[in-house]
Amino acid sequence: MAGKPLTGAALVGQSGGPTAVINASAYGVIKTALENENITRVLGALHGIKGVLTDDLIDLSKEDAYELSLLMSTPSSALGSCRYKIAEPEKDETDYIKILEIFKKYDVRYFFYIGGNDSMDTCNKVSRYMSFAGYDCRVIGVPKTIDNDLYGTDHSPGYGSAAKYIATTLIEISLDARVYDSGMVTVVEIMGRNAGWLTAAAALAGEHKPDLIYLPELTFDMDEFLDTVESIYSKSKKVIVAVSEGIKDKAGKFISEYTSDMASGVDAFGHTQMGGLAAVLTAYIKNRTGAKVRGIELSLMQRCAAHVASGQDISEAFGVGRAAVEAAISGTTGCMVAIARKDGAVYEPEFKLVPLGDVANKEQKVPLEWIGQNGGGMSEEFIKYAAPLIMGETGMVKENGLPRFVRLIKIKA
Amino acid sequence: MAGKPLTGAALVGQSGGPTAVINASAYGVIKTALENENITRVLGALHGIKGVLTDDLIDLSKEDAYELSLLMSTPSSALGSCRYKIAEPEKDETDYIKILEIFKKYDVRYFFYIGGNDSMDTCNKVSRYMSFAGYDCRVIGVPKTIDNDLYGTDHSPGYGSAAKYIATTLIEISLDARVYDSGMVTVVEIMGRNAGWLTAAAALAGEHKPDLIYLPELTFDMDEFLDTVESIYSKSKKVIVAVSEGIKDKAGKFISEYTSDMASGVDAFGHTQMGGLAAVLTAYIKNRTGAKVRGIELSLMQRCAAHVASGQDISEAFGVGRAAVEAAISGTTGCMVAIARKDGAVYEPEFKLVPLGDVANKEQKVPLEWIGQNGGGMSEEFIKYAAPLIMGETGMVKENGLPRFVRLIKIKA
Repeated sequence: MAGKPLTGAALVGQSGGPTAVINASAYGVIKTALENENITRVLGALHGIKGVLTDDLIDLSKEDAYELSLLMSTPSSALGSCRYKIAEPEKDETDYIKILEIFKKYDVRYFFYIGGNDSMDTCNKVSRYMSFAGYDCRVIGVPKTIDNDLYGTDHSPGYGSAAKYIATTLIEISLDARVYDSGMVTVVEIMGRNAGWLTAAAALAGEHKPDLIYLPELTFDMDEFLDTVESIYSKSKKVIVAVSEGIKDKAGKFISEYTSDMASGVDAFGHTQMGGLAAVLTAYIKNRTGAKVRGIELSLMQRCAAHVASGQDISEAFGVGRAAVEAAISGTTGCMVAIARKDGAVYEPEFKLVPLGDVANKEQKVPLEWIGQNGGGMSEEFIKYAAPLIMGETGMVKENGLPRFVRLIKIKA
Repeated sequence: MAGKPLTGAALVGQSGGPTAVINASAYGVIKTALENENITRVLGALHGIKGVLTDDLIDLSKEDAYELSLLMSTPSSALGSCRYKIAEPEKDETDYIKILEIFKKYDVRYFFYIGGNDSMDTCNKVSRYMSFAGYDCRVIGVPKTIDNDLYGTDHSPGYGSAAKYIATTLIEISLDARVYDSGMVTVVEIMGRNAGWLTAAAALAGEHKPDLIYLPELTFDMDEFLDTVESIYSKSKKVIVAVSEGIKDKAGKFISEYTSDMASGVDAFGHTQMGGLAAVLTAYIKNRTGAKVRGIELSLMQRCAAHVASGQDISEAFGVGRAAVEAAISGTTGCMVAIARKDGAVYEPEFKLVPLGDVANKEQKVPLEWIGQNGGGMSEEFIKYAAPLIMGETGMVKENGLPRFVRLIKIKA
């Protein structure tokens, strides 16, 4: 797919749920594009593809260079994000006609889209349409997701930092939860609707890892769970459970939706949305064991706690952004940058390119053979896989003891 | 109160809820005591006064010096804690007879007790009893509490680190919650049953501070609250609320206990324990505004997130421990070490001694004149007060990208 560089503007957008390092990827794209002589202008789409559709673009060339560098340690999506589901171009051309119009208006010849599964689908459709329309524009996807469920890449930027936050927090919670000599069951609810990568990261906490770890890849059985908790509690009086928000029973029902069908003696409550799982489980445990129970939801912190981001993750996030620009300059289009591991005992990542069509709408789950039955924890293979991803610290700038995050002036293009 | 040093053992215990820096205070005591020629042995009571009552003491002189130094960055109570309510010595002497027996058994001539309000009460009673019994033992209280409600001290070690965690997390949540262009109300529930110091710390987040801040020092009115949220929401579509778990209505009822009396159209739920406030408020807000609402409980993390502890706080926590030993050596007993601010534009703390009887069972709340009405935020006086306490970073040792916390061998005395 080698080819000559095109001359024209580059456009970058961010999409889907934010992470601690999605801005580092944006910086990888922006910095590399600003330094490239073929790229005449570097534009940002506000709120992802929605910003393209509404002509809401900013000129990143006009931002201060130091401020831009703070993208390396700023969480969330500095350009704004969206969860816009774009139509199949074959079925409804409306959006694509608009996108093409905007691309032509700003002479966009490079389009970089940073996101997860859905965003790679959008990226793929835009890429296909530009080919169909005969408009010469190189479209490259840049991976990000804390969920680590993107297909075609060993892992995704964002995961390492979320995993580091989770492991760090589990260690700290473990010390805290064991401070009294009285009994206590602690249930920590972790994100991940279909894939359990984040919850699995609790196993990185070493000697402080939870007693039990439940991933959505395996069916959850409430009775078995309560038996296990009760058994550990009766021996050690302390139980720490890490559980993925997405666990389901054998009928396919989310455990977080268990409410009215609860055993009697427990208060009724109406958490039917995702996020109520800790409340459901603590109620069941309390009912069964009579123990003091505490539910903890790691909530948004697991995707935005940039102050404890992984240095390795930040570096790779920047790297996939830079690799995207380099690939596009050298002629590639319709691909996502993926991360692979070089052979050898020491972890070393390298970047490769995979066709967007191979990535879009697929989901990478935790291999079943890495997951212990009935909360039994993660295998050594998982630890070996995940441990390198949480190494190193952020270079975050602090002012008055607090993070100093990027302030963009966002001048309209 | 100057006097000659006594020769004998020193005993240190930790009590009440853990903090990110209570171990730094323990290290201040232990290190200073180990270095003092008058102190023959340094012992630790496991689980506070309960360890004394059950003769569960360890010999800290036998711990590795490097491991002990890791106490500086290890959260939770390394010696274990308790919430044991000791009787008035005048009413029931049983516990005191046992304590005296243990003190005599180990020749304890220095007793250091690290804790909050209740612990200072325990400390005061032990001190009084030793005087009454004519047993020469110097008893000094060492302050700690994330709640910052200890009387007689400008602030308490533990608060600065919790405040830093809260401000840091509020900044990160603020970026995350604003990433989409759709509407969203975020409610962040923060610890503090009677005093709002922790929730007030949200105001340290500067440009990222919450739109609304509610402390338990002021009466909470649900209708007024919902009107305010609705008004901000209708203008900006984003509202972030920081709220103390302890807010009450004018009848004195905890808002977290609002359940069955909720407006119809909202699911019933049974959070009557502390910690359910975010769920209550999100349900009310959703019912009133129809907005997407997210409740976040900072839970245990606000007291155990040592990875983002304040360097200033750690230093002061160590300092109060050291000052306690120095005071005891020079003849003081029946006092707590307190922190004062030196005069001058630049923050500089100094240590002083206050009689335990003046501290025990009192509560220091946020001055009412520092608190804005109806969620209106904190005054400049508060910012000036709290800002110096969150400065500086932890010197935490990391191994494989994760905190390396202390491992004590705990050899029985």
